[in-house]
Amino acid sequence: MVSVKYRQTVHITMTAPEQKVPLAVEWKDDHIVMLDQRMLPHDFVFENIHSVDKLAASITDMVVRGAPAIGIAAAYGMALAYVNGVDMDKAKEKLEASRPTAKDLFTAVDRIADVWTSGKDPVAAAIDYASEIEEACRTIGETGAELISKDMKILTHCNAGALATVYWGTALAPIRFAHYHGKKPYVFVDETRPRYQGARLTAWELRMEGIPNAIIVDNAAGHFMSRGEVDMVITGADRIAMNGDAANKIGTYEKAVVAHENGIPFYIAAPATTFDPTAESGDAIPIEERSQDEVLEWGGLRVGPEGAVARNPAFDVTPARYITGFITEKGVLKADEIKGVFGD
Amino acid sequence: MVSVKYRQTVHITMTAPEQKVPLAVEWKDDHIVMLDQRMLPHDFVFENIHSVDKLAASITDMVVRGAPAIGIAAAYGMALAYVNGVDMDKAKEKLEASRPTAKDLFTAVDRIADVWTSGKDPVAAAIDYASEIEEACRTIGETGAELISKDMKILTHCNAGALATVYWGTALAPIRFAHYHGKKPYVFVDETRPRYQGARLTAWELRMEGIPNAIIVDNAAGHFMSRGEVDMVITGADRIAMNGDAANKIGTYEKAVVAHENGIPFYIAAPATTFDPTAESGDAIPIEERSQDEVLEWGGLRVGPEGAVARNPAFDVTPARYITGFITEKGVLKADEIKGVFGD
Repeated sequence: MVSVKYRQTVHITMTAPEQKVPLAVEWKDDHIVMLDQRMLPHDFVFENIHSVDKLAASITDMVVRGAPAIGIAAAYGMALAYVNGVDMDKAKEKLEASRPTAKDLFTAVDRIADVWTSGKDPVAAAIDYASEIEEACRTIGETGAELISKDMKILTHCNAGALATVYWGTALAPIRFAHYHGKKPYVFVDETRPRYQGARLTAWELRMEGIPNAIIVDNAAGHFMSRGEVDMVITGADRIAMNGDAANKIGTYEKAVVAHENGIPFYIAAPATTFDPTAESGDAIPIEERSQDEVLEWGGLRVGPEGAVARNPAFDVTPARYITGFITEKGVLKADEIKGVFGD
Repeated sequence: MVSVKYRQTVHITMTAPEQKVPLAVEWKDDHIVMLDQRMLPHDFVFENIHSVDKLAASITDMVVRGAPAIGIAAAYGMALAYVNGVDMDKAKEKLEASRPTAKDLFTAVDRIADVWTSGKDPVAAAIDYASEIEEACRTIGETGAELISKDMKILTHCNAGALATVYWGTALAPIRFAHYHGKKPYVFVDETRPRYQGARLTAWELRMEGIPNAIIVDNAAGHFMSRGEVDMVITGADRIAMNGDAANKIGTYEKAVVAHENGIPFYIAAPATTFDPTAESGDAIPIEERSQDEVLEWGGLRVGPEGAVARNPAFDVTPARYITGFITEKGVLKADEIKGVFGD
């Protein structure tokens, strides 16, 4: 048993583009080390997490975010409960209540709970889970890169990079591999209001890799599509139903509709853990509504008038008909292939 | 001749919802009084403008914005040149160079230049121009309100209210009149990145009128449309071509496409001065690209990483096929009626 050490901070300096994105979540001996993504790209603060309560709060507060990274964090959370001798069922409940939409969270805690029930080691299982996601994301990168031609201009929404997955990314993995292969991709980065994961995280990851990119307001995505400046859209996902309807960061639906209208291929990149065998369609996916303050304020600055009301759905559902294909570790799938590959 | 007094500021307090929006631009004796919209809704600062140079800078810097209000400011600018004995042709050139997209700017300076050439009083003509826009916006309000049924939920983008027109608004005018008629409209206010004219200006105007509304990130408009929560979209415009293609604040195109996809009527409200008889289609409309800093920073806070690049088109063009109708002082027009009504 280790005493809880909150907020042991480590500041590192990112200088060269060769330097890679640090791990968003890591298991270290008997606890979790987590990069506080709320402070990126200006400050690099790592936290040591020794309790399930603190981990659940970190997920709710988006210290860690991105469905696959949330899944890994949750798997480690179950390991943490085991190491600390905490009731595993209660730990599972707490983690499941931390955020509702990302399927990976539920996939991960179910997996580790099953391992524990069968008498095996939850810590080893959680580390295996993370390795599996790493492998899946690498395969997504290699597979997805084949869809990218030389000099393609690709639009992405939110951050589905290494920070969202711990390794490689989902939507950014094919772009990374295309870049490694000399295909010189160029990326339009939707800033992704209200929390700016595009401007803060994706633009920073791409700069570290030396991949040319421009941040745009979310409003401008359609403009560039209509002008023929976007060749492809790739996003991640938080939960994908068996019919191919996909929940992802708010705004994804708009980009998919406008891409479809302009004949631009729209891909979703996600590992198996994001697919939900229990959801027949997008109607079954719960959409989190977050605090109004995320819309009305940024960095302590208030935008709207006093007394203003905001609505803040964190995700939307893109119907399968707008999605060209799903880039997964099992290949690039069409919507009607999902159930066969990822169904129960 | 009056000496130029920069930045004589007046602070007023807005308290009750009954209190009306102050005039964005006003002619006073021999100069212009302008509300600095960059500081709303938190500070109310009025500036006295005595020179064409300062007026042109105020338009460029968006102290005043919104096509009809820019037009009125420019008309007053020509009056100012006349009062100050400035070369009228040079004044016209300066004002025309201040911003490229809003047609009203060019309509207004042409009008006052013609009056001056014909030997009449440019000051009286500028005041007449403003009255004409006031009357047009009132008619747009009354006409457009007939399209609004009881309890309708209406989405609007940017600010096309009194602040954008000096009186009544364009997109907001029908909503105001529907409210006065007891139809209880509810408004989804796109925050409108990068300059937040929705969150800062529209939400504030609506609160002053007591019209219920919610600010949403631009990304969320499609979500609410797809959930059946939006009955109608109304926006303003900066320039409308003879075939009905319309330039308006960046993001309008996306909203129009998604509204079309969801079978939601999408209206543009604009006075005659916004229609461009010389533009056959949207291809002829110049789109202003503004500073990267508008995207990368807000209120001195930087969002993106150091060295980040942004692209910042201020407007986009919505093709006529996505626009249900044009609410004008000449009635609600279809695209194919525009040339007959507003053509040369």
